[in-house]
Amino acid sequence: MPPSTKDRIVDVTAELFRQYGYTGTGLKQIVTNANAPFGSLYHFFPGGKEQLGTEVIRRSGQMYYELFETIAGAAPDPVAAVRDFFAGAAEVLRETDYADACPIATVALEVASTSEPLRIATAEVFDSWITGVGRHFTAAGIATATGRELAVLIIAMLEGAFILSRAMRDTMPVEIAGSAAAAAVDAALARAAEPRP
Amino acid sequence: MPPSTKDRIVDVTAELFRQYGYTGTGLKQIVTNANAPFGSLYHFFPGGKEQLGTEVIRRSGQMYYELFETIAGAAPDPVAAVRDFFAGAAEVLRETDYADACPIATVALEVASTSEPLRIATAEVFDSWITGVGRHFTAAGIATATGRELAVLIIAMLEGAFILSRAMRDTMPVEIAGSAAAAAVDAALARAAEPRP
Repeated sequence: MPPSTKDRIVDVTAELFRQYGYTGTGLKQIVTNANAPFGSLYHFFPGGKEQLGTEVIRRSGQMYYELFETIAGAAPDPVAAVRDFFAGAAEVLRETDYADACPIATVALEVASTSEPLRIATAEVFDSWITGVGRHFTAAGIATATGRELAVLIIAMLEGAFILSRAMRDTMPVEIAGSAAAAAVDAALARAAEPRP
Repeated sequence: MPPSTKDRIVDVTAELFRQYGYTGTGLKQIVTNANAPFGSLYHFFPGGKEQLGTEVIRRSGQMYYELFETIAGAAPDPVAAVRDFFAGAAEVLRETDYADACPIATVALEVASTSEPLRIATAEVFDSWITGVGRHFTAAGIATATGRELAVLIIAMLEGAFILSRAMRDTMPVEIAGSAAAAAVDAALARAAEPRP
């Protein structure tokens, strides 16, 4: 079954946000790329661009997290999961001419001071990632609060490395961040395995 | 002496980029906020928004780096310099209602796939930060290549933590990244001080 008009609009918008951000993505461009009549956008999203944006942020955030789960599911331990995720991110950067990195980062920075509904959607995505990634660390024996802090750190490393890598057109920052992220997980696992005093 | 019209245009644009990004900043808004006639913008920047943007990225990047130098100059060692810089960044976030973080990050993500002149300007700023911060580590005894990698990692941590902190309206990510960044410098200094085998 081909994707519905609504799904095409959401998918196309997600792709445009990733490359051009929220402000840089026009409604005309969305309907043209989605091969949808202009009216269908307001039919499915009566709240216009902001409502569509909220749905795209949520869906993109969830899909990106599912990618982490897929990679983590194939990895023998959380250290390998983190290392493999960063390695995959570097590969995607190279393959897409440094266009595809985090699906919501550009939008998150653009809307942080300009749209509360969109900002809240990005905050909810980041919070869901922190909870989800942290759960993997907790399952491996790391204390809950420590696992959550580690997840925050690793997501921050990835997001910041994406900015540097896209600007410099070089995967070096993502590679450096990936090594440091894997080492941080390794160190936290080692500390968790130490006998309690 | 009051700032020149050109300086006012650059300063106002820098402030607008920080909060609204490149695409979200309009030329009318710039001249209005700078209290400058519209024609003066094209008088000083014949290349229009892209030329103005390039100058703003360079100047903002340099000023932000000078802030690091000021903080590093007052700190007893590179560990304290990094810790103090992140602590200051968290304070500015709180004071500005999470508006003022990195002066060029939003623009860097927006333009990475859309404007080569602007992308190159952001890449040059990041490269100058990596060189400058790395030099502090080298001066403290860390090998040049290691110091540069450490600078990349710390700048990535700061940039990524800014995204999370602005989205979540919480300084927690910047605080976690600051602790990890200081610990990374501390560990690199300890390794550099070990006797060679």
